[in-house]
Amino acid sequence: MIRSDWQPDRASPEPLHRQIEHYFKQKMTSGEWGPGTRIPAQRQLADMFNVNRSTIVSALDELVAQGLLEGNAGGGTRVVSTSWDALAAKPMLNWNNYIHAGSQQPNSQIVQTINQAEFHPGIIRLGTGELSPDLLPVRRMQAVLAKLSTRAMTLGYEEAKGSMRLREALSDRMRGLGIEASPSSILIVSGALQALQLISIGLLEAGSSVIVEAPSYLNSLHLFQTAGVQLNGLPMDEQGVIVKDLARRRQSSRDSLMYTIPSFHNPTGIVMSEARRRELIALSERERLPIIEDDVYRDLWLDEPPPPPLKARDAAGNVLYVGSFSKSVSPGLRIGWITGPKTVIDRLADIKMQTDYGSSSFSQSIAAEWLTSSQYDDHMTELRAALRARRAHMHALLDRHLTGLAEWRMPTGGFYVWLRLNTGISATRLFQDALRHGILLNPGGIYDRTMGSFLRLSYAYASHAELADGIAGLASLIRSQVKA
Amino acid sequence: MIRSDWQPDRASPEPLHRQIEHYFKQKMTSGEWGPGTRIPAQRQLADMFNVNRSTIVSALDELVAQGLLEGNAGGGTRVVSTSWDALAAKPMLNWNNYIHAGSQQPNSQIVQTINQAEFHPGIIRLGTGELSPDLLPVRRMQAVLAKLSTRAMTLGYEEAKGSMRLREALSDRMRGLGIEASPSSILIVSGALQALQLISIGLLEAGSSVIVEAPSYLNSLHLFQTAGVQLNGLPMDEQGVIVKDLARRRQSSRDSLMYTIPSFHNPTGIVMSEARRRELIALSERERLPIIEDDVYRDLWLDEPPPPPLKARDAAGNVLYVGSFSKSVSPGLRIGWITGPKTVIDRLADIKMQTDYGSSSFSQSIAAEWLTSSQYDDHMTELRAALRARRAHMHALLDRHLTGLAEWRMPTGGFYVWLRLNTGISATRLFQDALRHGILLNPGGIYDRTMGSFLRLSYAYASHAELADGIAGLASLIRSQVKA
Repeated sequence: MIRSDWQPDRASPEPLHRQIEHYFKQKMTSGEWGPGTRIPAQRQLADMFNVNRSTIVSALDELVAQGLLEGNAGGGTRVVSTSWDALAAKPMLNWNNYIHAGSQQPNSQIVQTINQAEFHPGIIRLGTGELSPDLLPVRRMQAVLAKLSTRAMTLGYEEAKGSMRLREALSDRMRGLGIEASPSSILIVSGALQALQLISIGLLEAGSSVIVEAPSYLNSLHLFQTAGVQLNGLPMDEQGVIVKDLARRRQSSRDSLMYTIPSFHNPTGIVMSEARRRELIALSERERLPIIEDDVYRDLWLDEPPPPPLKARDAAGNVLYVGSFSKSVSPGLRIGWITGPKTVIDRLADIKMQTDYGSSSFSQSIAAEWLTSSQYDDHMTELRAALRARRAHMHALLDRHLTGLAEWRMPTGGFYVWLRLNTGISATRLFQDALRHGILLNPGGIYDRTMGSFLRLSYAYASHAELADGIAGLASLIRSQVKA
Repeated sequence: MIRSDWQPDRASPEPLHRQIEHYFKQKMTSGEWGPGTRIPAQRQLADMFNVNRSTIVSALDELVAQGLLEGNAGGGTRVVSTSWDALAAKPMLNWNNYIHAGSQQPNSQIVQTINQAEFHPGIIRLGTGELSPDLLPVRRMQAVLAKLSTRAMTLGYEEAKGSMRLREALSDRMRGLGIEASPSSILIVSGALQALQLISIGLLEAGSSVIVEAPSYLNSLHLFQTAGVQLNGLPMDEQGVIVKDLARRRQSSRDSLMYTIPSFHNPTGIVMSEARRRELIALSERERLPIIEDDVYRDLWLDEPPPPPLKARDAAGNVLYVGSFSKSVSPGLRIGWITGPKTVIDRLADIKMQTDYGSSSFSQSIAAEWLTSSQYDDHMTELRAALRARRAHMHALLDRHLTGLAEWRMPTGGFYVWLRLNTGISATRLFQDALRHGILLNPGGIYDRTMGSFLRLSYAYASHAELADGIAGLASLIRSQVKA
């Protein structure tokens, strides 16, 4: 979609519709809007340029008449390919051939819609799995930056595995969780997503399959699927993934590995019980099943810390453990890490170097400073208190507005309430309706195809007032579906 | 390779070789050193633990006797796979199956050797294409951080294409080069390497081929080859790639696109002439040949600015333009950008989001502050003066030591001297000899298979004293080859 930084000049003698027409032409002749570029809807254009819709209609009609734009059956308008030569008097490359050529698939449509809608001004983001701007530790971060500004710093590349200072700090911290990982077995990455990306291109073959919880965050990403890897969901109960089912499944099929979020699972909020963790590790050893443990929500416990990580019990080296600063301190840092058998970490480090030559050394210095000062622990204490208040607020709102329309259980940590809509309510329709009403939802279907009657709600992002408006609005949208 | 943070305890009553044996066992039982992990050479281990080599031999012999380590024909020692069960009494996963499964190929051996050797203490890096630590603007960077520490800041995710402030600043700066790019046509990436990575997975199909200059930086990377893309080198002269040869080649084959570094080419230092640029753009329009213009060295001109970018003449939207802060300000920032037709940028932004959710917002804020204050331009003025002095130093050293042994031409900007060794001197052997003498070279073969008799030297990284020692050392290694 086109976003414009340009505005028509109201002081000019040239009519507004001509100015807009010329602006469009200039973008097309410069090659910036190549053939196939989608033009926003008339209403959006009118908003964008602060003009009447009729002005837009005049401008677009003229461009269509000149053969530069064309409408399509779906009602959209695009820059024409075939007439391009006439306009520019220069043959124009159709980059679309290239755009569809690469190996990476575009994000699924609904996820793309969510990604874009997140930037609509005023939208209430009821499903967003991030800390709200007011929960982000701006003052502490300013203090950290001020401290770093007085220090010697690394402006050059870091070692392939990342800053030694940060890896040492992470090694210390993980020891406190029962994980023995020396700095040479730790790879710094640009967030947990990149960890998964590196694993998918570095360790998985096209045609292999990965066991995930059903539902799973991994289904909302395209990266494993893009690598030709199939995801197989296994049922969960309130103790986490059902390991008996996993054992049964292993008798008939040889999945390559398992991906799990044992603590404050995304999207269900479930914490895998101590017993279930032992079972899973035993199975992993018996069956030689590698496990990716995504533990990015661990420090966001609200009632009590979760049981130790799977990695802490992993004497056989079967677990790759993934952590991140994105959920607890700052997504903008783009810092996460992986630890596991050194040969695997070496391999992933080599691929990371080929991909982007390592993560920002500034972000790494900042992260190290957070961990080695008291900032991290002090912040987590404050953050937990704020999240508890948000959780209580959400709890009260759900009780007040959604009782009888849906079912849910409040989590003991993390961000998410996994909410099951009563029979007969379509989450897909609800998603579309809500979007039109300025409420952004994360429908369950993006985490598991069969879970279309669920929603992932989050109490971490929207403000208290937005949560109140959003949940009330959601309730009335559900009611109008039930009535219709 | 294993690097150790551990040291034997000389005060302990336990013999050193036993301590080392136990340390190794602990690493193996924790799964950190999985089956197949390579054990460093005895000499290296002795250095690492500050013990005699006989102590290492005792420890390793014991571990081999217990069936935990095994030697191989090549003289290396590895952790055994088959006897693992006996040790841990737990089945151990062979991650090697996974390590060889993924789609990404490991970096070529010589490039890996270079990457590792760069961290050897005391090594003289004669080929490194980075600014030396003393050229990196630490004080200016401290001032930028101090300024940012007093400001409102983005701790959350940025928009998919990156920080609007940075994109606006880049849009302004590129306008000064004759490139019209609005912020919505700019994608912020984590360095030029990531730009190429995104292009290779997003726009290129396996089996396609890309034209590069011969020699080309791209040959030293594995990322296009990993995507199944073939690189075809075209000859250069002192004006840049020979466009007539390109036109001829197009008659027989349909390469997907061309990758070029028109200004201060890596590795040759050549600047494409004005006339050659016009020819290339005309051919690109006529033949609809997309071009990736890698312009990361542009601001490092020493005598006069290079001709305008290809992108400035690209009325047809055929050029994707890539820039970076890594060569001019700080590689550790990991900030670069791509601009081109908006549809292409949209596609690459989507893939970037799937890969790592965007670049560090701290690095982006820092980069924006550099561009919007006077820091960038002031720094470049200072940097050019320092690089001119280094270039003159290198020039004098080459004249003094290598006259008669090699030929070269001093560049008008960038970092590199492309040096041709006289007939009969093997660059591969020279690379190995030099490495043993603590001098790290970039042999020409990594940039083009047929250019084994060249070296890429750089005056940007090693200190003045190191350059003097390094070039003198190089000369005596060459002489000893000539004599032998």
